[in-house]
Formats: sequence, structure tokens, C-alpha cells
Amino acid sequence: MSAHATARIVLDRLRASTPLIGCITNSVVTNFTANVLLALGAAPAMVDIAGETGPFAAAAGGQLINVGTPTPEQRLASVEAADAANRAGTPWVLDPVAVGSLVHRTALARELVARGPSCVRGNASEIIALAGSGAGGRGVESADDVESALDAAGTIAERFGSVVAVSGPADAIVSAGRVVRVGGGSAMLTRVTGGGCALGAVIAAFLAAGRSAGVSDADAVVSCHIAYSAAAEIAAENSSGPGSFQPAFLDALHRLDGADLERIELS
Amino acid sequence: MSAHATARIVLDRLRASTPLIGCITNSVVTNFTANVLLALGAAPAMVDIAGETGPFAAAAGGQLINVGTPTPEQRLASVEAADAANRAGTPWVLDPVAVGSLVHRTALARELVARGPSCVRGNASEIIALAGSGAGGRGVESADDVESALDAAGTIAERFGSVVAVSGPADAIVSAGRVVRVGGGSAMLTRVTGGGCALGAVIAAFLAAGRSAGVSDADAVVSCHIAYSAAAEIAAENSSGPGSFQPAFLDALHRLDGADLERIELS
Amino acid sequence: MSAHATARIVLDRLRASTPLIGCITNSVVTNFTANVLLALGAAPAMVDIAGETGPFAAAAGGQLINVGTPTPEQRLASVEAADAANRAGTPWVLDPVAVGSLVHRTALARELVARGPSCVRGNASEIIALAGSGAGGRGVESADDVESALDAAGTIAERFGSVVAVSGPADAIVSAGRVVRVGGGSAMLTRVTGGGCALGAVIAAFLAAGRSAGVSDADAVVSCHIAYSAAAEIAAENSSGPGSFQPAFLDALHRLDGADLERIELS
Repeated sequence: MSAHATARIVLDRLRASTPLIGCITNSVVTNFTANVLLALGAAPAMVDIAGETGPFAAAAGGQLINVGTPTPEQRLASVEAADAANRAGTPWVLDPVAVGSLVHRTALARELVARGPSCVRGNASEIIALAGSGAGGRGVESADDVESALDAAGTIAERFGSVVAVSGPADAIVSAGRVVRVGGGSAMLTRVTGGGCALGAVIAAFLAAGRSAGVSDADAVVSCHIAYSAAAEIAAENSSGPGSFQPAFLDALHRLDGADLERIELS
Repeated sequence: MSAHATARIVLDRLRASTPLIGCITNSVVTNFTANVLLALGAAPAMVDIAGETGPFAAAAGGQLINVGTPTPEQRLASVEAADAANRAGTPWVLDPVAVGSLVHRTALARELVARGPSCVRGNASEIIALAGSGAGGRGVESADDVESALDAAGTIAERFGSVVAVSGPADAIVSAGRVVRVGGGSAMLTRVTGGGCALGAVIAAFLAAGRSAGVSDADAVVSCHIAYSAAAEIAAENSSGPGSFQPAFLDALHRLDGADLERIELS
Repeated sequence: MSAHATARIVLDRLRASTPLIGCITNSVVTNFTANVLLALGAAPAMVDIAGETGPFAAAAGGQLINVGTPTPEQRLASVEAADAANRAGTPWVLDPVAVGSLVHRTALARELVARGPSCVRGNASEIIALAGSGAGGRGVESADDVESALDAAGTIAERFGSVVAVSGPADAIVSAGRVVRVGGGSAMLTRVTGGGCALGAVIAAFLAAGRSAGVSDADAVVSCHIAYSAAAEIAAENSSGPGSFQPAFLDALHRLDGADLERIELS
């Protein structure tokens, strides 16, 4: 089956099943992340309190753990969620935001990746730093390009069994022995805060839907990137700056159909 | 006087008096909640630090306490605000977000409802769980319908003296011996995160304005639902998805006039 | 050189250099603040965890410290950031949100202003309260007008060596022996939460760009207000309420050019 046909199946399943997605994420993007999930047809729950994240991750269809604002409370809550997700078999995504030189998030991300997330999503600098071979980028900006992160992504994929998604002008999805590049999308996503962070949550939703449709995690992550990039392209065509891009992107996710997915090229 | 005429009076008073509304709410919706209050003509203050919430609740025209992200800090701040509001006679609203199986918020919501909020607002599952007779819904989604929550709402209304607003396709406002159903609105509100949470803050603003206009709390809560549903309908007519709905909703709240309220039917 | 010509130079430098701006700000406005910086062409990083803010402030081009939601964690993180910024020579902005009667933020703002921020930005009531001569306003609303705050602004400017920006219908920028008033803008900015808070972050970005272009801090702050007010005017012309104003404002910041700056009058 073509990747586009698979993406259509996973998107349809997502909308039909409204998977509950637990999100531990940074305070900057909680609102946008929840709205992205709602627009797409998933059910977000931004539960991030220790004592609540474990039971929630166990019951959810998918879980996101983003280390962007790692308060002491969120650090506890994150480890609790990862362990509970693993015990329950809930797919979960790690987003190692700005790891490298900043101490708390880097230590936390290392603890979490060792627990074997279903998917790790980050920009090239974050993936390189997480693999232990770089000092990170400039805040949330990448100082490295996607191709230069493929070795680090492969290392993480092999060591922890994760699908690794490296975000950039073209995204690379790396899993055991395979690299798929997803083109398209829009640079406007980098001018809206949370463009990358929300993608992590959407991956969790596609993993949930993919598993219920019998699609592998790697294929579900590729499906997700096709859908996200298609919506971004449509939004860019219907907006005149980063302000109007944001509502246009949510509208595009809401209305996205199978034909829209065809505009994205893979390699 | 008709409910619509009352709603017009309270809305006019709200805009003329710009009531200061203290909000302790979850981190996902603080921004949207503040913007909803500003668009309507109230003055939001998202003060949620222990040691500050008490004095603030005492000085405010109305207070919201939403338990959606109950950090240890917010738990302390919430109880402090409720006690101060009661001492000062400030009307306050409890929003028991996702109570039921999640431990911290459920314990906190029980502590708070026992303090006799002026209004409790939630979906059917939350109201049933708060009354002690259910396990809650699926995150912020209700697993029960509004009619099935009327007994629980009546129990809370009777035991704690609160007006209870049950949100759903049609909302039910329950107070001592009376049920008013407010129709209309738009399902798009469920596709924007904070659609329900912001309603809790708007209720606090209508309670503040209602009291200064000599309108009962129950009638002020009905007035609020009429206005909120009317703005949602207008926004749905002027948008093409959940992304464009959000600015359209804020614009509609800003421009809402007495004639707009007439489109909402009560029963 | 005219103030408008200087503003054009600083804006061009900002876009060419993409300064990294560390932001410790209140939870209500993190998202909007980051989007404002991105739209303008700066690189925001909302790092606010103790242990991370110091190294970050030292490496950043500019730093914002806003005391709007002063959790214990943020209080530690703020002092750490101010000290590190001072040691590294990073320009930093203090926004004393709602100081006056609320205890934690008032104590924190006093501690911070004593460290000599490059700029203090607030409304009239906040500036008066910070100078020790008033009880503050009504939440984030000013109870005083800009002219009545000029003495307090002068006191802060003299005692701590800061440029002081007083926000109001016309803004006043006060520095050693000089007052510049920047007109224009739009009242819609007061109907969007974070309109003032995001301005504080934009000042930090203009300070960063100004220093690299050899422009004084006082002139950079004036430049910033010219640009911000011009974008607000353009947005007001392209929107129909506070909801549509917000995306229009971000679009206007993104597209702002030198000719747009000319619409703002100084006195």
C-alpha cells in the first residue's frame, strides 16, 4: 500500500475513534497543542500533575511528554507517565525541546529516552544532543540540518527501539534500517510557537489510531507527517502572515481529506 | 420580565461596570479565558499564587476557581480564594474539570464545593462525579448526557446552595426547585479548548454584574448562558472551522447586542 | 537622525540578526509573547526554570522578566536571570505587572529593580507603585494616567539607571533628563491579554538589536514603541474586534516596513 493510502486510513481511523491523548507539555504551547488535537479530531487532556499522569497515561490512547518547561512537578509527572505508558502498552512520544546545554531538561530527556519511547520527535540539534553527540541548538532553533542528524537518529532508533522523527525543511522519519523523507509543509510553522511541539502531540494521536488500524508505528509517524505538512501548505495558501496562518492551519486540519494528502511528496 | 430582557440588563451592566474577575484556572486556557472576558467588557486578573489570591478574591467583583491543572500551589491558592470570597461576599464559580477518577482535582473540588460556591459549572459527567455518584467522563469529555445529570445537579444545589449549570448540547441551569434549559450555541465550542472553562469565568462576570443590578444569581447564570450561546452561534456563521471560529467568537462577544440575545430559545 | 530613521535601522537589524530573547513571563501570555517575537523576526525562548535561566540570560541577546504569575520557581528563576544578565552585559527588561498591593510580585519587583534593569515597562499605576509612591492599580489596569507617573518614572530612571517606558493612550519613554511621547497605536491592544506584556519582550529584542547597531538603549526603546504602535494601528484597520485584531497584529508585525513607521507621531 502507498504511504498516502496508509495515511488516509490512519486519519480516518483517528477521526472515527477520537483517541484520548494525554499531554505533558510546556506552558507556552498547551493551548495551541490542545486546539490542534481538537481540530484534527482527537481528544486532548493536558494532565500534568504527579499522581494523575500515571493513571491517565495508562488509560489514554496515546501520550506526549515534552520537556520544554521542566518544573520539578512536571519532571515527576513525566517519569510517572512514561512508566505507566510502558506498563499499559500506551504509545508515547518524547519531545526533547532545547536539550543540550540546559541542565534540567537534558537530564530529564536522557532519563525518559532510556525508557524507550515509541517515538522521539525533535529538530536536528535536539536529536544530536539527545544521542549524546552535540551541545544542542539555540533555544528551540536548530543549529544543524536534518541530514547531519541521521546518524544520531539511527543510534536512538537502534538503542531504544524508537521511531525518530527529525523536523526540518524536509522531515526525516528514521526507524530500524529505514529513512523516509517527507517534503512540503510551510516555513510559516516555524513562525508560530508550538508548530513543532504540537506535531509531537499529533504523532501520539496517529500512533493511537495506527495501532487500532493495524499500522506499524513507523508508518503511523510517516502518515502523521504527511497530514501535518498538507495542512500547513493549505494554511499558507490561505493566510497572509503568521497571525492568520494559525487559525487557517486549525481550519485546514479540521477539513483535511484524503485528496489533500496527495500533495505531499516522499523520498 | 422575560429572561432575554434580564440578560440584556445584566450584559449592559457588565459593560458599564467592567467588573474585576479573579481567575484561578488551568494553564491550558488562561489566555483564551482572559481574552473572552476582555472581549465581553470585563477586567480579568489571572492571579493564582497563594498569598495573593485571598486579598484579590476579596476585592474582586467575581471569582473563578477551575481545578483543571491542580498544582500544589494552585490547590493552596484555590482554598484561600474561596474562603476570602465567602468572607467578603464575592460571588464565585467552581469548575470541577475532569473530576471523578483523577485524585488531586477530585479531592480539591470536594473541598471547594463544601464551601458553597455561588455557581458550579461542569459537563454532565463532572456534575455527577462531584455529587458523589459517578466516576467521571473521559478527560474533559462528558460520558453522560445533560438530562441524566439533573438529579446530581439538584443535590448539589440543595446541599450547598449553589446554582448548578450543566453544559451540553442544550445547557441546564438548576437552582432551588427550578430547571431552565438554554438551547442554541454551537458545537464548535467543543472544538476549541477552553470553550467550557471560559464560560465559567463569564458566569463569574455575570454574577458580579447581576448582583449590582439586583438580579438573582440564578437569573444571572441563565443570562450568561443566553449571551454565550448567542455569541457562539454568530461566530459559527462567520467562520469555516475551529481555527477561524475562535477570533470570530471573541469579535461576537465584543459586539453582542440585545437583539442578538433573542435568537436563543429557553425551555 | 530622526527617531523614525533610527527605528527603521533597529528594526532592520533585528530582522537580520534574529536576536535570541529569553523570556520569564506570566503563564497567561507566554504563547502570545512568543508569537509576537516570532512575527517580528526575533527568536523567543520561554525558559523560566531556576538553574536554566542564568545560563540562558547570559547567552541571550536580550532578556525579559515579567512578574505576572510569580510562582516560587519563577521568583528564583527571575533573580538568577537578572544577576546573570548583569554579569554578561545582556540588556534586560523588567515588567512589574500589577505590583502595589499584591505581596509576592511587589517584593520580587523591588528586588529586581534594585539590580538595575536596562528598561522598566509598565502602566502608570505600576510605575508609581514600583517607585514606592502608590498602591497600584486594579489588577493589570491602570488607575492613574501617564503624565501623573512621570515623576515616579524619573525617580526610577535616576536611581537605577533604567529607561522607563510608561504605557498608556500615548506612551512616555523616560530616561536621564528626557521624555519622549509616542502616540498612535490602538485601544484594541488593551482588549487583548498580553498586549502590554508582549511589548516588554519586544523591547528586549529592540535593545538587543539596538546595541548591535550602536543605538542607545533609550533610542532603542523609543524605536520599539514606534514599531509596536504602527503595527497596532494597521491591525486595527484590518480587523473587526479583539478576536480578529490578534492575528491581524501578528501579520502586521511580520510585514511592517520603514514606511509604516512614519505614521506614528512623537512629541
